[in-house]
Amino acid sequence: MSEPAELGIRSDTSRVESFSDGVLAIVITLLVLDLRVPEGEPGHLLHGLLDQWPAYAAYVSSYLYVAVVWLNHKAAFSRIRQADRALGWANLFILFTAVLLPFPTSVVSRALQEHNQTDQRVAIAFYALVGAVLSLSWLAFYHYLSRHRELLEEEVHDRFFPVERIRALVGVILYVAAGLVGYLLEPLVGLVVFVLLPLFYGFTSIGLYYVTPIGRRRASGR
Amino acid sequence: MSEPAELGIRSDTSRVESFSDGVLAIVITLLVLDLRVPEGEPGHLLHGLLDQWPAYAAYVSSYLYVAVVWLNHKAAFSRIRQADRALGWANLFILFTAVLLPFPTSVVSRALQEHNQTDQRVAIAFYALVGAVLSLSWLAFYHYLSRHRELLEEEVHDRFFPVERIRALVGVILYVAAGLVGYLLEPLVGLVVFVLLPLFYGFTSIGLYYVTPIGRRRASGR
Amino acid sequence: MSEPAELGIRSDTSRVESFSDGVLAIVITLLVLDLRVPEGEPGHLLHGLLDQWPAYAAYVSSYLYVAVVWLNHKAAFSRIRQADRALGWANLFILFTAVLLPFPTSVVSRALQEHNQTDQRVAIAFYALVGAVLSLSWLAFYHYLSRHRELLEEEVHDRFFPVERIRALVGVILYVAAGLVGYLLEPLVGLVVFVLLPLFYGFTSIGLYYVTPIGRRRASGR
Amino acid sequence: MSEPAELGIRSDTSRVESFSDGVLAIVITLLVLDLRVPEGEPGHLLHGLLDQWPAYAAYVSSYLYVAVVWLNHKAAFSRIRQADRALGWANLFILFTAVLLPFPTSVVSRALQEHNQTDQRVAIAFYALVGAVLSLSWLAFYHYLSRHRELLEEEVHDRFFPVERIRALVGVILYVAAGLVGYLLEPLVGLVVFVLLPLFYGFTSIGLYYVTPIGRRRASGR
Repeated sequence: MSEPAELGIRSDTSRVESFSDGVLAIVITLLVLDLRVPEGEPGHLLHGLLDQWPAYAAYVSSYLYVAVVWLNHKAAFSRIRQADRALGWANLFILFTAVLLPFPTSVVSRALQEHNQTDQRVAIAFYALVGAVLSLSWLAFYHYLSRHRELLEEEVHDRFFPVERIRALVGVILYVAAGLVGYLLEPLVGLVVFVLLPLFYGFTSIGLYYVTPIGRRRASGR
Repeated sequence: MSEPAELGIRSDTSRVESFSDGVLAIVITLLVLDLRVPEGEPGHLLHGLLDQWPAYAAYVSSYLYVAVVWLNHKAAFSRIRQADRALGWANLFILFTAVLLPFPTSVVSRALQEHNQTDQRVAIAFYALVGAVLSLSWLAFYHYLSRHRELLEEEVHDRFFPVERIRALVGVILYVAAGLVGYLLEPLVGLVVFVLLPLFYGFTSIGLYYVTPIGRRRASGR
Repeated sequence: MSEPAELGIRSDTSRVESFSDGVLAIVITLLVLDLRVPEGEPGHLLHGLLDQWPAYAAYVSSYLYVAVVWLNHKAAFSRIRQADRALGWANLFILFTAVLLPFPTSVVSRALQEHNQTDQRVAIAFYALVGAVLSLSWLAFYHYLSRHRELLEEEVHDRFFPVERIRALVGVILYVAAGLVGYLLEPLVGLVVFVLLPLFYGFTSIGLYYVTPIGRRRASGR
Repeated sequence: MSEPAELGIRSDTSRVESFSDGVLAIVITLLVLDLRVPEGEPGHLLHGLLDQWPAYAAYVSSYLYVAVVWLNHKAAFSRIRQADRALGWANLFILFTAVLLPFPTSVVSRALQEHNQTDQRVAIAFYALVGAVLSLSWLAFYHYLSRHRELLEEEVHDRFFPVERIRALVGVILYVAAGLVGYLLEPLVGLVVFVLLPLFYGFTSIGLYYVTPIGRRRASGR
């Protein structure tokens, strides 16, 4: 008797999805642990609460970012019929960078509160590095899917995942650029890119193929 | 070949529900991290444990509140057939405010222990602000559902979600009022409203439509 | 048009189970946060690690306890066909006490390390109190199920949940007794009961009906 | 009326899997809490970030290890049709050791930063001990499955789980050996084994039966 070839090699995606949901749910929730009751003299609570604004900004931006990762994850997996081992590892790589995200976020938030230019440049560069690795993990994921049609649902368009790679590549390039500009020239430029990129990924979470003419044109040109 | 219009745009609600269950399960559990073994001289453990009563009160009230959010979430999603992107974002907005909740709760709990009137007024106003935003997120959610019949299960009554908006609106108004009264006149009034509102939402979690004659009358008047 | 009576009132148990799994998974995992690298002079790591033995004991016993709660929860819900609101609240009451459990556990663990008799008596009484409330929550849960045959799977024996109440009642009585004896006479007696009771619930998690002749006799006597 | 024998004794594996997914998702995420913004004088952020390298190494290696545990867990459960109580306990034993893992990892990470030979030997021995217990838990799990064919999916090969025991046994032996060598002779040898073993388990997560000729030869020899 021999096992069917697929057993344990390929599997439906339910456990991958539930494990990923669990990890992302925890990351998005742990962020609140960084919000603390301000310590200070009696009568100065209002002052203390307002002083923590960079912590609130970090909380909101991290929350948005993890939310966007989850939306993109959901959009991708709604197109995947079965997972193999390499896709499992690519997914674990995405989760690894998503779990890491709150750490550079607090580094930037702390640096903003302490008004030291050198530290702010370092913090921006550090955040950009993690952002670039996060985009790289999505690039690897989309690239693998664009080469393995057999893992996808039948009705997925052939050009969908190849075009998605562009979204991830945009992230790698812009994070590296923001890190360099932020470190060498002006930290603020880096911050602006950090805020805009998740918005871009949020708006395009249904797939670049659907929101820009690029994908359509290339698709029809086949 | 072109993808069916729905793929990636609308989807069944299973991942939205499991992600939300994960987030709410974590929030409700993290609250216990605020309960700590009292530090104090040997022989005074009983005293130390009793002194922490505002922490216990904060724990119980936050637990109840998150439980009520979960019950309302479950009641709403049992009526939703499929989710689109806007509903996904409305849900993420609800989760955002629910995750935030333990923070103003500890601010109030701390202020109660320190007997400073100014701080207590600020804490009450802060809690009221978060409560009002939480109610706003439900208002947006219910409003969207009342305009998108096509996302709902067939057997849901046409008036169900329109009437649910009233429940959320009551919250917005009462939290704002409690914040103003608590800040300007008497903090205790705010506290009483904070305890009563979750009870109201707990009792009406099956839908205002079912517990009051308002919904029925308006429904039959169509 | 009117909604079917069941919608939003009764529902299948999938979300209740996944939410409960999430909560219990988190409680059982949070416990490890209490294990810390011992701070101490270089060269004394072994000593530091060994000195923390009450923390390890607390970790193991809390883990076992939450594991037993999960096994009993799973055994009960495998017999439940649908949940109504009251059952939902009974379940939230069980989760509330389970989430609370690590707190008295660390209080006892700390008291054991500090060798103060008064504190140890208080800690034992406090743990017993939480244990008794935990058993009470199961008593309420089993009692409700024994009165609502319509929520159960068809093949569940009529005597199953009525007999399960005995298990919960044993817990209420023994925890109260252990608390009184531990507080008034000898703390060690309390500790022994705290270790034995989860073992009892672990061994009988398939239902008292199956492990003792009591249930069988009463069932055949109908 | 009597209940069918299986009710509450054997059950499908869905809740065991979702509970395990939850626990592993939390462990893998909690690790990031050990990464903290370095405290230090303004202008020295870069230095502070670089100084924490053992914490990053601990984070990456723990993440990889828990990921490998999850992959092996998923591979095993894709072959299990139903769980009984003993398998439930074996699974809880695996989760227990997985949850524990971050603790010895930080002990080793701290010891590496403090350059004390005695502490490093103790830390290596402690990690090896936990690693050996982790492998033991898998050995018990695989052994139980190799004796209970009736719990497995029909298409699973008879030799699959018997051969899997070898993988677990390799872990027990190598962790004990690494602990002894690391404690008595050279800590570095222990570290190398700690890095190589998860890689071995990662590469063989589809089952030793498939990656080595041992399993095939023994299987064809029947």
